[in-house]
Amino acid sequence: MTPNPGTPAFILHTPQLGENIGAAARVMGNFGLPELIVLDPRDGWPNDKAVTMAAGSPVLDRARVEYRLGDATHDLNRIYATTARPRGMEKPVLTAREAVAEMRAAIAAGERVGVMFGGEKSGLPNEAVTMADAIITLPVDRSFSSLNLAQAVAVIAYEWKADEALPPEFEPVAGVARREDLEGMFEHFEYELERAGYFYPPSKTPLMVQNLRNAFIRGRWTEQEVRTFRGAVKALALGRGKARVVRED
Amino acid sequence: MTPNPGTPAFILHTPQLGENIGAAARVMGNFGLPELIVLDPRDGWPNDKAVTMAAGSPVLDRARVEYRLGDATHDLNRIYATTARPRGMEKPVLTAREAVAEMRAAIAAGERVGVMFGGEKSGLPNEAVTMADAIITLPVDRSFSSLNLAQAVAVIAYEWKADEALPPEFEPVAGVARREDLEGMFEHFEYELERAGYFYPPSKTPLMVQNLRNAFIRGRWTEQEVRTFRGAVKALALGRGKARVVRED
Repeated sequence: MTPNPGTPAFILHTPQLGENIGAAARVMGNFGLPELIVLDPRDGWPNDKAVTMAAGSPVLDRARVEYRLGDATHDLNRIYATTARPRGMEKPVLTAREAVAEMRAAIAAGERVGVMFGGEKSGLPNEAVTMADAIITLPVDRSFSSLNLAQAVAVIAYEWKADEALPPEFEPVAGVARREDLEGMFEHFEYELERAGYFYPPSKTPLMVQNLRNAFIRGRWTEQEVRTFRGAVKALALGRGKARVVRED
Repeated sequence: MTPNPGTPAFILHTPQLGENIGAAARVMGNFGLPELIVLDPRDGWPNDKAVTMAAGSPVLDRARVEYRLGDATHDLNRIYATTARPRGMEKPVLTAREAVAEMRAAIAAGERVGVMFGGEKSGLPNEAVTMADAIITLPVDRSFSSLNLAQAVAVIAYEWKADEALPPEFEPVAGVARREDLEGMFEHFEYELERAGYFYPPSKTPLMVQNLRNAFIRGRWTEQEVRTFRGAVKALALGRGKARVVRED
């Protein structure tokens, strides 16, 4: 019996183009789905174009090729059929998000889950959809609904991981500055603006200060950015030297 | 000024392969995103391979080609940069789902929004990421993170529509049967099973009935399915004729 990898298997049902098989294997690798089953690929197996498009994905090397649907699905407890066309079948129809939530629960309960994708020409045959527990359909535009096979795989593969937290290396580089650092920056900036004759007429000074501070506050600057900007203000003030700058409005 | 179509524009930054531009245009059409901007495509424009892969997508015909990033983004109020690599920049990092929620709010407030995707070789240059309001990153496997350009476009395009309700043609064909129809079916089925000598030993009959009823109830059968099954039971009972079937256990 196939060990349960904790992820759904993806079954490509009679795919035609090696490019699409390879692209599917690539994006499955991107989203951590190791198990690809290829049912009766039109152009035989192995397939050079699949290898090229897989871009080194380990999923392609481990792909299982079967020639009967029953062999592809024999050890699955739960099967989903992806289709853009309604089939008039009495079967639950789910969004990808709903289906992934179900899959996660089923896999956590020890089930083996598979997702079937139809071939390029006409999608899954009704006989295959019939054997599925539920249909997954994507919110495609009715006037241009034909989704490329590998793109359909990409969407479900993505959805499998969509709720994951951001990877730690994407965490912010540094924390936002504390208010006392901002206060110091504002006072420094406003002092130099005052010296440069920027605040005119004096009656408008409080509003001008308020507007400037609001614009900076919204940026949620880091300590480093505060230091950088104070250096910039200092350079402008010194560079100005003795020449008095007069505002032009 | 470009009219606001109520959707984000997608900007492909210096893409290399026409196939990927075409596949991006196709999946944008699938998910109702009309506005594609192609920045300095390596192989010139128009591109036959893009036309082939677009599979008739109206998005490709309307694509705008620009040669400077500033021209591609000039009328946008908000820009997202997609990247799989952290850039060590002080910039908000969002999941696709979070970014789409922001985009929807911004567009509703009248903003023009763009999403940038980098070329195949090395993604977005840092200069382009710098001009973005926020980074979108996808939950790719760190050991195999290189997502195909058109697949990245597919994922964001899908996410734009992911919360849409299922299209009405996918609604169930018929309602679930009422309990009285199920009761009638059970009584008919159990009557014929009784006649056929299925319930043995008699002390186990209640449990056997309970298990059968539970299995059927879970299927949430429609009225039509109830009628079909009653026909099947009738056919089996009649077909059996006078030959008494004895269970084999």
